[in-house]
Amino acid sequence: MTNQKLFNVAVVGSTGAVGGQIIKLLEEREFPIKELKLLSSARSAGKKIEFKNKEITLEEATSNSFKNIDIALFSAGGSVSKELVPHAVESGAICIDNTSAFRMDPDTPLIVPEVNIDQLNDHKGVIANPNCSTIQMVAALKPLYDRYGFSRIITSTYQAVSGSGKSAIDETIKQSKEFIEGKEVNPDILPVGSLPVKHQIAFNAIPQIDTFVDNGYTFEEMKMINETKKIMGDESLEITVTCVRIPVIFGHSESVYVELNKDFDVEEVRSLLSQAPGIIVEDQPEEQIYPLATNSAGKLDVFVGRIRKDLANPRGLNMWIVSDNLLKGAAWNAVQIAEYIAKES
Amino acid sequence: MTNQKLFNVAVVGSTGAVGGQIIKLLEEREFPIKELKLLSSARSAGKKIEFKNKEITLEEATSNSFKNIDIALFSAGGSVSKELVPHAVESGAICIDNTSAFRMDPDTPLIVPEVNIDQLNDHKGVIANPNCSTIQMVAALKPLYDRYGFSRIITSTYQAVSGSGKSAIDETIKQSKEFIEGKEVNPDILPVGSLPVKHQIAFNAIPQIDTFVDNGYTFEEMKMINETKKIMGDESLEITVTCVRIPVIFGHSESVYVELNKDFDVEEVRSLLSQAPGIIVEDQPEEQIYPLATNSAGKLDVFVGRIRKDLANPRGLNMWIVSDNLLKGAAWNAVQIAEYIAKES
Repeated sequence: MTNQKLFNVAVVGSTGAVGGQIIKLLEEREFPIKELKLLSSARSAGKKIEFKNKEITLEEATSNSFKNIDIALFSAGGSVSKELVPHAVESGAICIDNTSAFRMDPDTPLIVPEVNIDQLNDHKGVIANPNCSTIQMVAALKPLYDRYGFSRIITSTYQAVSGSGKSAIDETIKQSKEFIEGKEVNPDILPVGSLPVKHQIAFNAIPQIDTFVDNGYTFEEMKMINETKKIMGDESLEITVTCVRIPVIFGHSESVYVELNKDFDVEEVRSLLSQAPGIIVEDQPEEQIYPLATNSAGKLDVFVGRIRKDLANPRGLNMWIVSDNLLKGAAWNAVQIAEYIAKES
Repeated sequence: MTNQKLFNVAVVGSTGAVGGQIIKLLEEREFPIKELKLLSSARSAGKKIEFKNKEITLEEATSNSFKNIDIALFSAGGSVSKELVPHAVESGAICIDNTSAFRMDPDTPLIVPEVNIDQLNDHKGVIANPNCSTIQMVAALKPLYDRYGFSRIITSTYQAVSGSGKSAIDETIKQSKEFIEGKEVNPDILPVGSLPVKHQIAFNAIPQIDTFVDNGYTFEEMKMINETKKIMGDESLEITVTCVRIPVIFGHSESVYVELNKDFDVEEVRSLLSQAPGIIVEDQPEEQIYPLATNSAGKLDVFVGRIRKDLANPRGLNMWIVSDNLLKGAAWNAVQIAEYIAKES
């Protein structure tokens, strides 16, 4: 491309699981970068990260870090975003925020490109990246919404530990090893690092992701409910969710039940989803082909299978939706948004 | 107890994961046994198993094994039951069959004592023990059915590998070790031993349990649908299920959504379930208390938590139901049936 505009890009949270994937994607996708600024906590500042065969030294993220930055990608946690995003916006950067800090703010578009890229420019400096488990679900549901309409979604998730960061991955491996060797397992981080009670994740299923809110749902479940309504632009959607952490490293799986507004043909659903952007249908039961978390790891797409009709309800549809939670669920969706911004600039 | 009647009991499948638990329970529960006959395949015949400080030598199960047997507990697979149960019945034994061979036979009661023990005597020699994932669900649903009625159930399961037997447990541990050590993982058994395609279970979630049937559902999913209707005695129930194998050794977890026929109060549901036989409510989100597969292992009860209302539907109820799949899901339910037979004799 000739005369392509180049951008000064900042990544906040460069040493995190998602930050690392963002940097990797910016390189692999050949994002039009003039200068890349890698920001981190004070503790990690001074470390070096390789980008396009050049070492970049991490700098501490502060309110003064965003001078001349065009696009800033945040994934250093909600409190960091709440503190620094306003400074970045003031400096003129467009912020793509991967935390929950601004997602439900009415002035902040919450974007999954396959669903609502038309809202990209409705921002006041901040574009929010949805929760991982929300992104893959709405990406798969959007083509069905457009074709059939629907009002009810009932979802149960099977979420990977990488959603809780590198320390949760390490803990899962450590506990698994201890369990296999017949040693005592001492949980230290999961289900929620900041809460007092810890549960074993190795060879277990923990029905808690994030803290509980007053209504008995977890914050993760409420994120899926509220974000889905906002992204789909339909507050009337009836959604209920149970979020569960299982001992998988990369790749969230979801059992999604949706009640469509019209009768449907399963073959037509397969065909619709096959043609949808960012979706790959893996659905050949007779060959034992269906999406698997381990197969999704490292890939950008959302995989859909086990597509079948509720035998008791001709409008009820079951699907198994799988995607790499660090990629489409986080880093890739954010970089994808950045690519649209670059394209439209 | 004076003059208690004693029974000649046979266990078919003595060396299996479920058979082993049946023998253990017969001992622990002090089942009124006159003589215990332990039957196995020809391959295992001659081995010895300890029972009440005495060694019992395994005998090969044949059509002639059931002379003078009062109660025979079968858990050696469907084909063995299909072949040998008729002979045992002819010899006068009451057969409690833990396979799927007779479950849907109209002449065979399918019993979960907490739900339909009133049908115990409707048999013609065979009483069927339901599928593991069905048992724990209906045990928890029955009190709600009686109090509120319901018509729709939407369930996603998180099933332990021990449901596929000892070899699946060994494979899960072996694969986990290989994965942790960075070695290649070579799946050998799961998802279905008799099918050609194998998938990694370590650090994965496999949405296939048992073979697929023509409608896109697995046989495990169809078992849950059909058995639930039969046990609840309500063919009009609308049930849809997604069955998933996860790397857990003991304890099936289930995310169950049920639409009750009446509005309900969550506190009343907790109270109803707390008083129900065989159910333990573990549901204190503020203390991070909810059922966990690892905690259920080795226990006879069904654990229920994460009890909460669908925020969009005042009659929609979410629950997280966990139980040891080898105990209440198999061996304990069978021995429980045997105890009722003994009590009524």
